[in-house]
Amino acid sequence: MSGNTFGKLFNVTTFGESHGLALGCIVDGCPPGLELSEEDLQQDLDRRKPGTSRYTTQRREADQVKILSGVFEGKTTGTPIGLTIENTDQRSKDYSNIKDTFRPAHADYSYMHKYGVRDYRGGGRSSARETAMRVAAGGIAKKYLKERLGIEIKGYLSQLGPITIDKVDWDEIRNNPFFCPDVDKVPEMEDYMKALNKEGNSVGAKIVVVAQNVPPGLGEPIFDRLDAELAHALMSINAVKGIEIGAGFDCVAQKGTEHRDEITPEGFLSNHAGGILGGISTGQDIVASIALKPTSSLHLPGRSVDVHGNAIEVSTHGRHDPCVGIRATPIAEAMMALVLMDHFMRNRGQNADVEPITPVIPATPASY
Amino acid sequence: MSGNTFGKLFNVTTFGESHGLALGCIVDGCPPGLELSEEDLQQDLDRRKPGTSRYTTQRREADQVKILSGVFEGKTTGTPIGLTIENTDQRSKDYSNIKDTFRPAHADYSYMHKYGVRDYRGGGRSSARETAMRVAAGGIAKKYLKERLGIEIKGYLSQLGPITIDKVDWDEIRNNPFFCPDVDKVPEMEDYMKALNKEGNSVGAKIVVVAQNVPPGLGEPIFDRLDAELAHALMSINAVKGIEIGAGFDCVAQKGTEHRDEITPEGFLSNHAGGILGGISTGQDIVASIALKPTSSLHLPGRSVDVHGNAIEVSTHGRHDPCVGIRATPIAEAMMALVLMDHFMRNRGQNADVEPITPVIPATPASY
Amino acid sequence: MSGNTFGKLFNVTTFGESHGLALGCIVDGCPPGLELSEEDLQQDLDRRKPGTSRYTTQRREADQVKILSGVFEGKTTGTPIGLTIENTDQRSKDYSNIKDTFRPAHADYSYMHKYGVRDYRGGGRSSARETAMRVAAGGIAKKYLKERLGIEIKGYLSQLGPITIDKVDWDEIRNNPFFCPDVDKVPEMEDYMKALNKEGNSVGAKIVVVAQNVPPGLGEPIFDRLDAELAHALMSINAVKGIEIGAGFDCVAQKGTEHRDEITPEGFLSNHAGGILGGISTGQDIVASIALKPTSSLHLPGRSVDVHGNAIEVSTHGRHDPCVGIRATPIAEAMMALVLMDHFMRNRGQNADVEPITPVIPATPASY
Amino acid sequence: MSGNTFGKLFNVTTFGESHGLALGCIVDGCPPGLELSEEDLQQDLDRRKPGTSRYTTQRREADQVKILSGVFEGKTTGTPIGLTIENTDQRSKDYSNIKDTFRPAHADYSYMHKYGVRDYRGGGRSSARETAMRVAAGGIAKKYLKERLGIEIKGYLSQLGPITIDKVDWDEIRNNPFFCPDVDKVPEMEDYMKALNKEGNSVGAKIVVVAQNVPPGLGEPIFDRLDAELAHALMSINAVKGIEIGAGFDCVAQKGTEHRDEITPEGFLSNHAGGILGGISTGQDIVASIALKPTSSLHLPGRSVDVHGNAIEVSTHGRHDPCVGIRATPIAEAMMALVLMDHFMRNRGQNADVEPITPVIPATPASY
Repeated sequence: MSGNTFGKLFNVTTFGESHGLALGCIVDGCPPGLELSEEDLQQDLDRRKPGTSRYTTQRREADQVKILSGVFEGKTTGTPIGLTIENTDQRSKDYSNIKDTFRPAHADYSYMHKYGVRDYRGGGRSSARETAMRVAAGGIAKKYLKERLGIEIKGYLSQLGPITIDKVDWDEIRNNPFFCPDVDKVPEMEDYMKALNKEGNSVGAKIVVVAQNVPPGLGEPIFDRLDAELAHALMSINAVKGIEIGAGFDCVAQKGTEHRDEITPEGFLSNHAGGILGGISTGQDIVASIALKPTSSLHLPGRSVDVHGNAIEVSTHGRHDPCVGIRATPIAEAMMALVLMDHFMRNRGQNADVEPITPVIPATPASY
Repeated sequence: MSGNTFGKLFNVTTFGESHGLALGCIVDGCPPGLELSEEDLQQDLDRRKPGTSRYTTQRREADQVKILSGVFEGKTTGTPIGLTIENTDQRSKDYSNIKDTFRPAHADYSYMHKYGVRDYRGGGRSSARETAMRVAAGGIAKKYLKERLGIEIKGYLSQLGPITIDKVDWDEIRNNPFFCPDVDKVPEMEDYMKALNKEGNSVGAKIVVVAQNVPPGLGEPIFDRLDAELAHALMSINAVKGIEIGAGFDCVAQKGTEHRDEITPEGFLSNHAGGILGGISTGQDIVASIALKPTSSLHLPGRSVDVHGNAIEVSTHGRHDPCVGIRATPIAEAMMALVLMDHFMRNRGQNADVEPITPVIPATPASY
Repeated sequence: MSGNTFGKLFNVTTFGESHGLALGCIVDGCPPGLELSEEDLQQDLDRRKPGTSRYTTQRREADQVKILSGVFEGKTTGTPIGLTIENTDQRSKDYSNIKDTFRPAHADYSYMHKYGVRDYRGGGRSSARETAMRVAAGGIAKKYLKERLGIEIKGYLSQLGPITIDKVDWDEIRNNPFFCPDVDKVPEMEDYMKALNKEGNSVGAKIVVVAQNVPPGLGEPIFDRLDAELAHALMSINAVKGIEIGAGFDCVAQKGTEHRDEITPEGFLSNHAGGILGGISTGQDIVASIALKPTSSLHLPGRSVDVHGNAIEVSTHGRHDPCVGIRATPIAEAMMALVLMDHFMRNRGQNADVEPITPVIPATPASY
Repeated sequence: MSGNTFGKLFNVTTFGESHGLALGCIVDGCPPGLELSEEDLQQDLDRRKPGTSRYTTQRREADQVKILSGVFEGKTTGTPIGLTIENTDQRSKDYSNIKDTFRPAHADYSYMHKYGVRDYRGGGRSSARETAMRVAAGGIAKKYLKERLGIEIKGYLSQLGPITIDKVDWDEIRNNPFFCPDVDKVPEMEDYMKALNKEGNSVGAKIVVVAQNVPPGLGEPIFDRLDAELAHALMSINAVKGIEIGAGFDCVAQKGTEHRDEITPEGFLSNHAGGILGGISTGQDIVASIALKPTSSLHLPGRSVDVHGNAIEVSTHGRHDPCVGIRATPIAEAMMALVLMDHFMRNRGQNADVEPITPVIPATPASY
């Protein structure tokens, strides 16, 4: 496959540029019989969509998804589901001035070397606008996982620039524009973002995604381990530079006695593994963290070169997120849902014969 | 694919258990005309193989690789290359006592849930012994990349438990059993490992892998970005719990002005991106870091359950690496080589028409 | 992949039902820099589209294709090309009466067993209407193959029910509604079809597709041989029941001395191989034939069962092609184009290093 | 994938040349818990192996298969199964004289153009010797399909050169070296082959393969239809030039009323569809026919060119099958088994939720 498809049995292929006519995707392999409407997908799209707070880009997109196929009389039919979202608020002339420049930290330079041409309007294909389709596709997976298997996938912002959180209150996440689960840190984040906007700068963020109630047995060793596929999926999100499963980089300084999650009949005593051993889910919560770099589009000028190799100075105007990490939570959830859905189906394909012969150890009470 | 294959055009499929007759793999898609001998592959296998120092497992395996096909009169023919390594030093009775137990932090529990059976001897398929075949397969990719494209891939240990390094001297790496590039830290590491062995405990480690002289343009957006595929490849290595590209998790607290790698006609002014923008290589050094958890097999007893759900206490005897990270450097190099080789071929397949029309910016002098 | 994607490097994924809102596809992997407009694709769509003669279904569809992405300033950018065709002439109530019946020779029964539900309007996903997207996608491949490599792909009807052709005049094909290359047989075909329509019956057909000027070396042994992939592609067309490459079934009674295509420096002396040896193109014309079954929708009643297992009698009203083979020529061309394009790219990916060291034998003058 | 892998969930990757050290394959995705021994696979290998009658090549190979992994205590574990067969009766010097020649109808010329080099000993990778591994791999699929699902796959020779059969007696097939189900035709075939050997010529053959007791619902529209995948699988067998499903090319002259298989509650009234509608199995017997070309290696001289482009005359000595079709029956069975196994698993992966709500129509009594 040429890179725009993710998944083996449950897979999604996306198309579309930031300032093209429309974005779209095909979700192939969805089991039949799932009730599905556009409203089901709109929820997460609305969580991701721009222009909903002063801390994200002011581009206003309705991000209204349309189901073109694969659903009949309100239920999926097992055939491919075609989805589109029209682009409505394009201001392509905002970009004419960058036609011949390579913006630092953007994909301009690498796309130009790869393809020899590029759709420079708003980053073209490299724009995070493409992730709208992932959220839509992930919404289908999320719905199936929740309704049929009771799996719940949810994420939050765990760090905004220098500001870390102290607690996780799942109910707080929807109450603020940062997806922050610690209500006490929200004012600090607001102040930080205001100062950042004034400065014309941007900042990075860290997101945590958790899947609860995942059955043991998902993941295909050796190369398609659940953690490896999650790493693939999450690293494919624009601006992500780091991935952790469970203890992540903390495990470097841990001793074996500390890291290993001891087991009792009543439950695992910890979850440093992040719910995955040997690349296969254990039934504990799956926990992944991602690092997102600061937005590359800045009002503050930076040094670069143009397509002819001349030294230039670039500063980006137009409308941009000062912290791309803020809107990344639903995207990360969607990618985790796509991975779990695909692995649920793959595992069922190979191992449906397996009779449950071993005890299922209860998951550790969550503590993230 | 069922999980034991990696790569699209240049791909490797492995088989084999820790205590089976043999390990093996098939490398499919290798370009014809590459000079290749078993000695070429043996070099890295010897770097990875156990029993070469007192800081790794005392299991002694010759790890002698055999080329069964795909090479004729000393050159690859473009047909699949079959490789095998016989297992010679198996002491399977070491494991009979764990037949009915789930060792904490091992894949015993998750494999049992997935497959209903498991080859419990030495971890079976979940043993890191499988990585020998990746090193062999990666050796083919490494050779092609170096000889035809001048790409050099090399790694080192950047942290052993609490001990970090202060400098990277590439020439030192081969002079100590830790793959440590900082000669001044080697005595400290030796002392640490001796104490650890005495204690019967294990510890984590951090590895850095670098690819130099990579041409711009490798990587297939959206999902098969070069960084996403690297994350997949590296996370598929046993015991890995975290991945960073370039600045990695440091980017969370970075501002845009700090993170963005400014460009001048003479070169990029930094390499926080780790050589990848928009999922495509920029021509700068590709830099990835991985976190490896402490070995799960410990002499120190831990709580667990058996296959019947009874509470038990487990301590592992037999021969084990006290720090699996130590031998991971050649494995990480191999995985990076497999990714780059595949993407070189995929890019050539799609984009061989593209004429180089833009300036190639020199890579930043390395500083890791 | 879940079955709606074809190709590895150059691939197409389709969606859409006969009576849904729209059909669509994503073409991923198209090399950048190809001039491409909707008109380029419309040509073949118009050749395939219904309602253009009295010998095809009277359903009238504009089959107007829309390019939603992947083309910028008139040229492909290397990113995925999203295409859609709206369904305009749906008369879904024509089908309400078949909701609970399994029409003989249709996919009703098998879809119902597979998915438990089906979009019964016009065959839903199993309708040949889906092939419109293949023709659109194949049009991109055809254009690249012709402009960059000089490869020409063309097909014709070689048999209509009992009527065979005696000669192949490429220029005649476009002059009659049957894609018949033998002008002398056209009146006979017209009479036959009129009688068939009157009878309310349908009939089978045979199509030949040829690719000229294909370079030697395309095709990936062992399983992805060029002939095997062509067989896959052509058999995936609705109603196809047989495939031949070159001599096809005639080779059963041939002796080795008769079948083998002897070679001289001036050219091959025959082309029983159909341009493929060992699964790899030889540079001779690639020749494939396909058998298409008679349309399953008939006015003449037939015995069947309903979804409750009761015996019923079915006769299909609505608008149908009396011979689906007639419109199959552009579809077969499109599928051959998709196969050749993908294999051209795959071969270039693996074997671009290979220097042409052997003589290229001229292709045999065509005789089909 | 680079062409040496077949299947998505249950897949096989093969390696090995005719005169290399060994052939081998990896079967990935086999469900755990299947009893499996080398003897299970040896049965079909012995049916295929050379040197068992005077009508096949006199090369003597034990074709003894070795299971290297994936089986523990007599049962599959769900991990990849590594298989090898050593080459023992190589007479490579038989081939030194063809090093620089392109034998007509062989893959010499096309391999040389593709790869620039070739292992000329016995055809190297293009030799039908490779199919031994397919038979071994197919044996695993066959065993699962039979034991778990009751599916039986069997084939026979339906035509040898000009000699067709009049009846199918399944019990006769094993009683003669031709896999001929019509005992009355065996003497004629013997005489024909003797004369052919004397003449130094070869001839084509036709094989039929049937799968009985296949559940409805297997096959993935649009591109991975069961018939399309069967066509792919069967056309990938060396020397195959034609494929038919059910009525095959006979459907061209059939009318709709004749071709359509009418349905009654007691069963389908015919099986022109060959057990597949809309690319999905119907529960009727799956019936496929293949045409195999005459062996290309002949004692009778033919015109060709050498690698320098000079006109030469070639006659092949060494040991060869005068009719490659004779030994093809177990190979065709194996390929059909691989397709059905993969599709059984893929269907289970996507559609295990589907409750059987429609009547299962009994299969037509077989008549081939």
